[in-house]
Amino acid sequence: MIKVTLVGQGNVSHHLAKAFQSSKGVDLVAVSDSRKKIHERILEQTEICIIAVSDKAIGAVSEKLGNTVRLVVHTSGSVALNELHHDRRGVFYPLQTFSRNRAVDFSKIPICIEASHKDDVLLLTRLARSISTDVQNVTSSQRKSLHLAAVFANNFTNHLYHIASELCVENGLSFDLLKPLILETAQKVCSLTPFDAQTGPARREDSTTISGHMELLRDSGARKIYNQMSNSIQKTYGKKL
Amino acid sequence: MIKVTLVGQGNVSHHLAKAFQSSKGVDLVAVSDSRKKIHERILEQTEICIIAVSDKAIGAVSEKLGNTVRLVVHTSGSVALNELHHDRRGVFYPLQTFSRNRAVDFSKIPICIEASHKDDVLLLTRLARSISTDVQNVTSSQRKSLHLAAVFANNFTNHLYHIASELCVENGLSFDLLKPLILETAQKVCSLTPFDAQTGPARREDSTTISGHMELLRDSGARKIYNQMSNSIQKTYGKKL
Repeated sequence: MIKVTLVGQGNVSHHLAKAFQSSKGVDLVAVSDSRKKIHERILEQTEICIIAVSDKAIGAVSEKLGNTVRLVVHTSGSVALNELHHDRRGVFYPLQTFSRNRAVDFSKIPICIEASHKDDVLLLTRLARSISTDVQNVTSSQRKSLHLAAVFANNFTNHLYHIASELCVENGLSFDLLKPLILETAQKVCSLTPFDAQTGPARREDSTTISGHMELLRDSGARKIYNQMSNSIQKTYGKKL
Repeated sequence: MIKVTLVGQGNVSHHLAKAFQSSKGVDLVAVSDSRKKIHERILEQTEICIIAVSDKAIGAVSEKLGNTVRLVVHTSGSVALNELHHDRRGVFYPLQTFSRNRAVDFSKIPICIEASHKDDVLLLTRLARSISTDVQNVTSSQRKSLHLAAVFANNFTNHLYHIASELCVENGLSFDLLKPLILETAQKVCSLTPFDAQTGPARREDSTTISGHMELLRDSGARKIYNQMSNSIQKTYGKKL
């Protein structure tokens, strides 16, 4: 049993705690408030202390932990390993979007690990495997790019859904109409590459439909995005085909 | 049994034919090549002729059909009802992205219908209900906006996946890492609104992460999209919160 303490009480900590609690390989010693001092006795018992707080707070929380604790890791996609102050430091980054009220199946979530000491890579691998089947060694520099890719695939995608939903509402239509399409679009790239899955007016250079759409768009932000995305699609296929 | 003939042999026609063939309410008389003349006997037997061809070809195919045929409909999101030349005309628009080799579950696909005659609205509703549980009356003008919304939710989203996959490849990472995130992002907006589901650096005005990402992005098209999307997210929440 790997003895783990979680610091932080946000979404990542909440879901990690749940996953550790139902894993046979992990003994969750404590889930601690990041603003409070952790009891020395808890730190002494802990093999891995996981700091699951906002990016900005990681450095300060790490400093406050002191030297009793053995291995300290954070869970962030964009913070470098070196921003932790301990000699034995690491990263335990579950690549997923977490909401408080949505259950997640951790077994399929890629967990990206990194550590300053070789033995700790093994220890973190064991910890990650206790909750997921997908464990990856990812360097700080790779992780930064991966986090950027996730911003495109998650944050920006969600914003496109928002623009689409506004277009529905403005025209007296339910956003529900788009849900099967949204799901299929996501499922499709699990078996085709996004390059091969691309369809639509920009892909087939259908300028009549594109100018019709530009006329329909009244919101200037949405117009700019339509234009930018269509140009980028045309450039992608003009270049490569 | 509603007697249906499909004109066109693309993806939409292929999947509609499959759905009609396994429906008890439909007798699929023929699936016809849009470039060839359809036998008079087939047209006489047909109650609904569905033109499932590219937007540009709809007008010409409709003209060629002549007057034997009773109700003529097309399956396009962006072509107006009036572009069909027959007195009894309609639209039968399944809101989904179709690929030849991917099976689709028609029962959950919204089918948007419209017709010039009241009785034909009822007939098209019966036809749509024979393959789907989600049948909607949508006007030509609404359908145009819905198609535009679908371009955001499907075509542009897929292009974001492509940019994300390029970032993975450039950094020696597998695109597989992003698949659970992509699926969860899509599933999330089936129970939360995209407005409420939004997360990420632009949403929380985390300028440190945003400038770090801008530095990482070497491709000018991707940089422009990052910038445009982040601005649009900030505007959305600055405005409304």
